[in-house]
Formats: sequence, C-alpha cells, structure tokens
Amino acid sequence: MEILKKKSQVRELVNKERSKKQIIGFVPTMGYLHQGHLSLIKKAKNDGCFTIVSIFVNPLQFGPSEDFQRYPRDTERDLKLLKEANADAVFIPSDEEMYNSNHLTFVNVSKLSEKLEGSFRPGHFAGVCTVCAKLFNIVQPDRAYFGWKDAQQLIIIRKMVRDLDFNISIVPVATVREEDGLAASSRNVYLSPDQRKKALVLSRALQKIEQMIKFESVIDANLLIEEGKKIIKSEDVELQYLEAVELENLERVEKIRKNTGILGAIKVGNVRLIDNLIME
Amino acid sequence: MEILKKKSQVRELVNKERSKKQIIGFVPTMGYLHQGHLSLIKKAKNDGCFTIVSIFVNPLQFGPSEDFQRYPRDTERDLKLLKEANADAVFIPSDEEMYNSNHLTFVNVSKLSEKLEGSFRPGHFAGVCTVCAKLFNIVQPDRAYFGWKDAQQLIIIRKMVRDLDFNISIVPVATVREEDGLAASSRNVYLSPDQRKKALVLSRALQKIEQMIKFESVIDANLLIEEGKKIIKSEDVELQYLEAVELENLERVEKIRKNTGILGAIKVGNVRLIDNLIME
Repeated sequence: MEILKKKSQVRELVNKERSKKQIIGFVPTMGYLHQGHLSLIKKAKNDGCFTIVSIFVNPLQFGPSEDFQRYPRDTERDLKLLKEANADAVFIPSDEEMYNSNHLTFVNVSKLSEKLEGSFRPGHFAGVCTVCAKLFNIVQPDRAYFGWKDAQQLIIIRKMVRDLDFNISIVPVATVREEDGLAASSRNVYLSPDQRKKALVLSRALQKIEQMIKFESVIDANLLIEEGKKIIKSEDVELQYLEAVELENLERVEKIRKNTGILGAIKVGNVRLIDNLIME
Repeated sequence: MEILKKKSQVRELVNKERSKKQIIGFVPTMGYLHQGHLSLIKKAKNDGCFTIVSIFVNPLQFGPSEDFQRYPRDTERDLKLLKEANADAVFIPSDEEMYNSNHLTFVNVSKLSEKLEGSFRPGHFAGVCTVCAKLFNIVQPDRAYFGWKDAQQLIIIRKMVRDLDFNISIVPVATVREEDGLAASSRNVYLSPDQRKKALVLSRALQKIEQMIKFESVIDANLLIEEGKKIIKSEDVELQYLEAVELENLERVEKIRKNTGILGAIKVGNVRLIDNLIME
C-alpha cells in the first residue's frame, strides 16, 4: 500500500494507474477508521477499483465550538486497517499541504446545506463540499464512495458533483451498525458506557419506524415521526431533529415512499449523533 | 474545427486528444469574439495546445438589472473567426446543457470577489467562478487562457484554481486595444460614436499614469490615482473606481511596484467599461 503525503504524489500515482486502464475508486475519510469506512473500501475493491483512501481531519467543516481539536486520531491503527482491507494507496496530507495560508475559496450547495444538520452546524457543509472538491481535483477518481450514515452529506456531495460537472460517479453504501445497533461512527468513542446505552434510543426509534412501515404498512410520515419522537423522548437525550424527507431535495414529505428517508440527530451529553432510515 | 454542443462530446474529444499526448488549451468566452479573444486562441495555438474555445453567455454572472438579455450574440460570425484562428474545437452549450433546472451549487472566492467590480456587481464573480469550475470539469484542460483586460476575474480564477487544486495552469494574456486605444470588449458595441469618444478617457488616463511611471519615475499611488481621476473627471462619464492594488490580493498599495496594477471602471450612459494597467 502506497502512503502519500503530497498532492503531487497522488497525481503521479493516479496518472500511472490510469495509463494502465485502472478505474480509480476514492474513499475520503477523516480517519479513526471503523467498519463503516471499511465497507466503503470493500465495495470499491469489489468494484475492481484501484482504491485510494484519504485521511484528513478537515478543519473547515468544524464550527468554532465543535470537536476539531479532540476529534479522535490514530494513524498507525488506520494504516494497519487499510493494509488489511487491501487499500491500494492512502493520502494523508498535512493541514498545510491541503490549505494554503490564505485559503479563500468555498463551494456551497445552497438550500440543501441549510437544512437538518446545517441548521445545527452552520458552515459545516460548505467545509465538506470545499474539501471534497479539492480532494476530487487532486485524486480525479472515476468513483467516490460515501456512506448513507451521513445521508445529508451524501446527498449534498452528489448534488455538487452534478451541478459542477465533476466527472465522478458517487457510490452510496449502506450504514454499518455495531452489534448493539448503534450506527458506526468515529465519534462513538466519545460515549461513556452510560451515554452509549442512552444513545441507542435513536437507532431503536428508527427500527420501530422501519417495522411500522414494513409490517404494518404505515406510510403516514406524521404518524411515524410522532412514534419515533415518543421513543426518543422516553430516554434522557436531547432530540435535535427527526424528519421524513425527500432524499433528492431534503424537503419534508407527508407519505413515506421510494427515495424518501427519515433523518435524525440527538445529543447525549456533549456528544451529537446522527442516524437515519433510507428508502432507496 | 469540431463544433460540440454536449458536455459528453467534449469529454470524448478531450479523452481522444489526450491519449494522443496532446496538451489541452482552453479559452472560455461569452462569444461575440474580438481581437482580445483571438489573441488568447493565438497564444494557446502557439503554445502547441489542442485548443478548445467555449462560447456561453453565462446567466449566473449577470445581475438582475444587468445586460444578460441584450448581451451581443453572433454565433455565425464567431464560428467563422474561430475557423480562421485555427481553433481545434468549440463548445457551444445551451443554457439547459449547462445548468440543470435546480442548480444550487456556487463557488465563491471570498474577499477578492467583494472588491472593485464586486462592489458594483454583487454575485458576479460567484457566477464567473461557478461557470469556470463547471467548464474546467467538463474540458479538464491542461491550460486555460484569460485576458488581463478582466484583471480581477483573472486574479480570482487563478486563486480559485489554487485553492481548489484544479490541475490547470492559468495563462494570462495582455489586453488588446482597438486603434483608438479602447480596450477590446464585446460590450464596446453598445457605445454610440459620441459615447465612444467619451469612453476613451479611461484608457487615456491609464496611459498618462503609465507615462508618469515610466518617464517620470512616479511611484506614489495617490499621486498617480489623483492624476488619473482628474483626467476622467474632465469628461462627461461616471467614474466608478480607479485604484492602485496589489495583484495577488487586490489590497490598495501606496507605491507602484512589480505585481501591482491600476484598475478602473467608468460608466458612459448605460455602458459600464473597465480597463487597467498591469505591472507584471
């Protein structure tokens, strides 16, 4: 596995592999890898891609009072996991390699970026889009893999790629859950055992909603959301949002159908967690 | 010369030419071509590029009260000029080919976009950056050619390319002037003979400043700007700005030196005109 720290090394490697007719698959991450990330890499490898993973904790997507400084990092462990997953290359740039000292350019997907997560994390998605645009230009992949766990991110990146004509297929991959049902996330490490027990209420609520849709054929979004909120409120956590939306535009829907999703966020102590149920 | 209307045709042609080891040169224009555009094409051809020109009057970079509807268009004449200039291909997309019906993504270079032209044309440079990002992703050129005539645009695009890691060299080309000294511009056609006479005051002021720098070694920006403004105010035109700035960041400078410029804008009747003097 090639370990690359410079953009120029990435370009060189990609040119070499592309001249060998390799399809370039790209998995952007912030490191502290978990089974969710590994499922993206597995999918890229199964698709036959020369698979490049990036590890970069992007300062631009954290708000001033958010967890940029304490975001978990463990490069040694990440490299070990990447080798085991047969990733072909990893790009680990420094902050200085990624951002010049007077970075002024931002990519923003209006409207979609202001809803749900965006209303709790202003500027977050502009940071995500900007770093993804940069990484897409550095790696110039044929495909980029994103998890449904961060559904709004996936939807916004897919819109950015379409609107700005990036020549990249965005490949969505299903959320991976830990044994207790919690959606895999690097931030799960913040949870104390007690907080973790409380945090499970979000996946439990989504599971209940899924069952109502599947087995009771309930499609009334208000009913489903009401039931989900009731479950979440039974636990000592802060419900930030739980909404049934159209996946393309994140507008609220009245009825659950194909291409809608139920997206939620809770706060357990200081830890924000998101999860969702996607009807693809 | 290949005439392409679809993005997919552009990608196909570029892939073909790149596989033949051609360097791809790109000249984005809004059409109604003049000697300035032709000098960009000439430069690209002289650099040995497979030269692709785009013609697209970009609605996104016009304000609601600006001249999008009446912007001059003459595709037949443009195609004739491009053939004579030995352009290799021209991309003429429709509005629908360029923008999907729910375009939401914008690229903005903060700070630089708010100064000078930006203060008179809010949103203009976000429109320019967004369409250039799209065109860069469609054409994926090795080099893109921009005229110093639109100095702020050139500086902003160069900054966007650097900040977002587009793998493109931006090549600046000197302003072309008509016989009477007026900087070549598609908008010159708006001027009545009387307005044209008045409009010359801007290039005359810049010429006087150039002479003071060259022959009298004046480098005091205030002195030079004062003299320029005096000349412009002697004519029946509206001075919008005349500023001596650092070319990299568009901050005002006290002394003229390498990498500074004097940028000006006037309005003659309803016609806005810009011009500048660049110390490269």
